[in-house]
Amino acid sequence: MIILITDYGMVDPYVGMLKSRLAEFAPSHLVIDLLHDVPVFNAHSGAHLLAAFANGFPMGSVFLSVVDPGVGTERDAVVMLADGRWFVGPDNGLLSVIGARSVDTRHWRINWQPEVLSKTFHGRDLFAIIAAEIATGHFPHDKLKAVEKLNVEFDAGDLARIIYIDHFGNAWTGVRNVPSNARVSAAGVTFKHSTCFGFVGKGEGFWFMNSVGLLEFAVNRGNASSTYRLKVGDPVLVERLN
Amino acid sequence: MIILITDYGMVDPYVGMLKSRLAEFAPSHLVIDLLHDVPVFNAHSGAHLLAAFANGFPMGSVFLSVVDPGVGTERDAVVMLADGRWFVGPDNGLLSVIGARSVDTRHWRINWQPEVLSKTFHGRDLFAIIAAEIATGHFPHDKLKAVEKLNVEFDAGDLARIIYIDHFGNAWTGVRNVPSNARVSAAGVTFKHSTCFGFVGKGEGFWFMNSVGLLEFAVNRGNASSTYRLKVGDPVLVERLN
Amino acid sequence: MIILITDYGMVDPYVGMLKSRLAEFAPSHLVIDLLHDVPVFNAHSGAHLLAAFANGFPMGSVFLSVVDPGVGTERDAVVMLADGRWFVGPDNGLLSVIGARSVDTRHWRINWQPEVLSKTFHGRDLFAIIAAEIATGHFPHDKLKAVEKLNVEFDAGDLARIIYIDHFGNAWTGVRNVPSNARVSAAGVTFKHSTCFGFVGKGEGFWFMNSVGLLEFAVNRGNASSTYRLKVGDPVLVERLN
Repeated sequence: MIILITDYGMVDPYVGMLKSRLAEFAPSHLVIDLLHDVPVFNAHSGAHLLAAFANGFPMGSVFLSVVDPGVGTERDAVVMLADGRWFVGPDNGLLSVIGARSVDTRHWRINWQPEVLSKTFHGRDLFAIIAAEIATGHFPHDKLKAVEKLNVEFDAGDLARIIYIDHFGNAWTGVRNVPSNARVSAAGVTFKHSTCFGFVGKGEGFWFMNSVGLLEFAVNRGNASSTYRLKVGDPVLVERLN
Repeated sequence: MIILITDYGMVDPYVGMLKSRLAEFAPSHLVIDLLHDVPVFNAHSGAHLLAAFANGFPMGSVFLSVVDPGVGTERDAVVMLADGRWFVGPDNGLLSVIGARSVDTRHWRINWQPEVLSKTFHGRDLFAIIAAEIATGHFPHDKLKAVEKLNVEFDAGDLARIIYIDHFGNAWTGVRNVPSNARVSAAGVTFKHSTCFGFVGKGEGFWFMNSVGLLEFAVNRGNASSTYRLKVGDPVLVERLN
Repeated sequence: MIILITDYGMVDPYVGMLKSRLAEFAPSHLVIDLLHDVPVFNAHSGAHLLAAFANGFPMGSVFLSVVDPGVGTERDAVVMLADGRWFVGPDNGLLSVIGARSVDTRHWRINWQPEVLSKTFHGRDLFAIIAAEIATGHFPHDKLKAVEKLNVEFDAGDLARIIYIDHFGNAWTGVRNVPSNARVSAAGVTFKHSTCFGFVGKGEGFWFMNSVGLLEFAVNRGNASSTYRLKVGDPVLVERLN
């Protein structure tokens, strides 16, 4: 299974071009569009989202992860094996959070270039081919060089900011493991806790631990982002009591 | 064939997580993204859309249908077999319109829970597994209990309101079988009839019976929703003459 | 491989209904969503986008191409074989640019109608069936009539206008083969050239030749469309020096 997580957007032709290349090099492999709307250019949000999603997927999954505003410049391209799952993408921090949170990791630098390499679309021309080869079980030893670690490593602790806003207006943060009695604030508002939407009043805001283990703000049958003017990057305050 | 109709949105990671679960339990089954933009939280619109779409799909199709603002509360989760097609979703009315319009229906309550069940994402953790098992032909008798009928049943007659607005700005209603000489109004405007776009002037509004049998408002090479300020929920007046 | 390029949008149910029909007539064929957001009703932009994409796909690919505001009127429906790739769609100019740029082309008019043909959705009821039959290798001789040429032919030279704006705000044009020392302007601004994003300052605008060979405007970590108020149809000025 090849899982795509990018900032390419779902409506543009980038995902289709990338899948055409995957179909060529791994014709019988299932490809899952997990998320193509990582906040644009935001490898930091992307790194925390990738870390939250990864554990929900089976061993052997190959994550093709591209949030890559530095495409075409000197940043490295890398492959990482972390606790049994594969990650392919730019060495700009995007893979570093799930890497640091894993027990067992190995890294390779991609030191190969295809004959035709667009300056702005390494996802299609470089990363897709490497990911497809790994998915088919033909590890491309000739195209990779083992390295000790990633070049760019983000802080792997919780990120106390809003990292994603979904189409319901729910605001995801990079904060994990918050007990229900914690005091949680954002945008100057302290939110109540609920386990799910139907247990608060219609139009009422609350926070909950979402389905991938991250603290999230929502409004029952409403839009938290517009109600509280929450946006990606906003800080979040979590006070754990006792 | 497993057909998805939800309010999850296409751009968020919900569909991808759900498909990962389908791939695990029904690995070789085709999954069709029919519609992930049912108006959010709007099981009423969803029920009329589902009823309009269902007949266009082959016998044996499994519709995984989730518009579920009450997820995590006490609403039931159900399976319905209606005229040879399967429907899996919450018992909040969403499945009731196609059910009431079918000749032959059977119903089951899902009385099983997976080991890990997110409070807010039963689509991934519960409904997807049941839908996948049905699609593979292994009917999950041990997880279901036959029941007489659904708990929540909407009026199954036509819904004389706008239930969906597409990206062209076309406004779908829940009204069927309108003869071309009917007098049709919405937003204070009486619209002319046409069979298709090219038979009215550029920029001109009209109504037509759309490709799934519902009355729809459109503007030739324009946007009916913005031109006439039509929005989901607006009433529609249909006067059948003679 | 069947490749979809339409103005149907990704969020609406049109693509899912079309894929259901493809699944029925070509059950084991890979379908790629290349682009469903061709500017709406804009066969001219669509023709130049299709021509730019086509060469990136393997021989034998079947492009199901639908931008068809005249659906239901008297425009013809056609099949074209151009340099080893198949194209199915309306005869309204959409297929004409790639046709004119190809060395070896053949054309057929679709002179068949299915029993049930929606007046407004030939993509699902007509084009999908023809495309599926071609993809499976059963060329539908009985449904087609060879013709000399297309009825509607656009100018196949470069189109010096903006033809697409992606979700990053990057503005694509219909201009090919521009050397890096050319003088390029749009919206009254002369842009500098760069090969990729990371070689200009953050927030700085530039032009580059994109991954399908078209001149494109962008802003490093910003939005060129909103920064420079670029929109589809805007003229572009390219002065080749020497």
